[in-house]
Amino acid sequence: MFINGLGLIGASMAKIIKQTDPTVSITACDVNPQNLTLMKAAHVIDQAVDFTQGATNADVIILATPVKSIIKSLNQLAQLKLRPDVLVTDVGSNKTAIVDAAQPLVDRGIHFLGGHPMAGSHLSGSQHSSSQLLAAHTYFLVNVNASQQQISAFKGLIAAGQFNFQSLSAIDHDQLVSLTSHLPHALAFTLINMIDQKINAMGIDPGIPAGGLLDTTRVAKANPTMWASILTSEPQTITDQITDLQQQLEQLKTMIKAGDEQALKQMFTHANQIRNKMEDLT
Amino acid sequence: MFINGLGLIGASMAKIIKQTDPTVSITACDVNPQNLTLMKAAHVIDQAVDFTQGATNADVIILATPVKSIIKSLNQLAQLKLRPDVLVTDVGSNKTAIVDAAQPLVDRGIHFLGGHPMAGSHLSGSQHSSSQLLAAHTYFLVNVNASQQQISAFKGLIAAGQFNFQSLSAIDHDQLVSLTSHLPHALAFTLINMIDQKINAMGIDPGIPAGGLLDTTRVAKANPTMWASILTSEPQTITDQITDLQQQLEQLKTMIKAGDEQALKQMFTHANQIRNKMEDLT
Repeated sequence: MFINGLGLIGASMAKIIKQTDPTVSITACDVNPQNLTLMKAAHVIDQAVDFTQGATNADVIILATPVKSIIKSLNQLAQLKLRPDVLVTDVGSNKTAIVDAAQPLVDRGIHFLGGHPMAGSHLSGSQHSSSQLLAAHTYFLVNVNASQQQISAFKGLIAAGQFNFQSLSAIDHDQLVSLTSHLPHALAFTLINMIDQKINAMGIDPGIPAGGLLDTTRVAKANPTMWASILTSEPQTITDQITDLQQQLEQLKTMIKAGDEQALKQMFTHANQIRNKMEDLT
Repeated sequence: MFINGLGLIGASMAKIIKQTDPTVSITACDVNPQNLTLMKAAHVIDQAVDFTQGATNADVIILATPVKSIIKSLNQLAQLKLRPDVLVTDVGSNKTAIVDAAQPLVDRGIHFLGGHPMAGSHLSGSQHSSSQLLAAHTYFLVNVNASQQQISAFKGLIAAGQFNFQSLSAIDHDQLVSLTSHLPHALAFTLINMIDQKINAMGIDPGIPAGGLLDTTRVAKANPTMWASILTSEPQTITDQITDLQQQLEQLKTMIKAGDEQALKQMFTHANQIRNKMEDLT
């Protein structure tokens, strides 16, 4: 099997595959040779290859680069002579664009299964990879034309991840991921910059930040290049959700200005319940 | 000395005072007799008293109830014959309203020092109190008419808290606390309810939430009654800040729609730096 991209997620996937079955042979390609050297020395991959060599010989191809590169790789794959039984899958966060880009491959009868393991870190690079980073989290599957047998085999290949697999449509996936990941990131980046501007304007020492502020803004430590790419890769979904949030904040302001403590208490109690239910799932 | 309100913060303050000097005698009053029984049994307070008895005999009065009760207590204190050397202080999150309410006392020559230890928890009640909850955090001081000697003596009384004391004006305090605490809470409550509504509308299983979402929304576990009271106690500051945030989100949408990855990357890089600096302070 072949992994294109040995960054944080690609290398973590490789570790999970080796943990599941150490006899599986993994070839890999990365723009950064250090990732390949590191993971080869750690016996996580068996061989560093170029993209064409890796792709044409593989029974499973995992595309584990940023979304825009995954789309380029899918275009490249459509030009190559792949094994007829190959399963092509990916780990990208944008499934509608990726499923669209997989169409030429699918038209040639190649099987494509969209995938997205739901975990990450503000760290990046194979040196921070770990089978534990993804383990026991949700793994979304957006199937295009893979057989049930291929899907089962793929789940078996990463069994050590003990994933919570969830199948859904590309559109629902993108809405959900935008809501639960992109929107919180957009908010955290915006909030932290606004707080900084206002404190500078006041010219005061804000002291040591409270734990609540640190928690709310932890994702603002995430990689700027990656997030600039994610948010612009599918602008409609995230900007529509930001508009929704602006409207909900408008309603909140109305309740606060009206001094409607009962309505606020009811809204916050509902939020309490939802948040506690979420935590119970982990 | 006398503490009015033995909830999470009041009882934690009592524990810090006893830890600093076990010979200090603490009287306390609380609407919930269980808090008094618990803290007396734990030797955190020496005697449960009624408000008038506690206030009239004390050399230091700490008002540690919710903001609206602190304001009522200040009105009550203005009617009582207090010791002439008494220092009245509080732990409330809204300093302009509290300093205003202290004016009748100040007019009588009583010394008032506004205070606000910057830590908390989604838990409440004396049973969750701890000297560690507040320890080593920022303690804001908004002085009205206390002498330097009284301020030093008060700092000495709670020395075991190893606080990072910061003095500032009531207006700056309220702007800062609204920015760094009220706004993140308002956002977290709003975001979690919006996510819940959208997922219900999609009718899908969202799987196990990622760590980033859990962090961003942790403060939505906070006490609904307390937060409905906090946000309505000074509506102008928080609603102005929500309006600012809505405008900053509008700018973010413009950058995303324009596909301006460079501008986004620059903004996110700045957020990275600010967030990392904050963490370095803890």
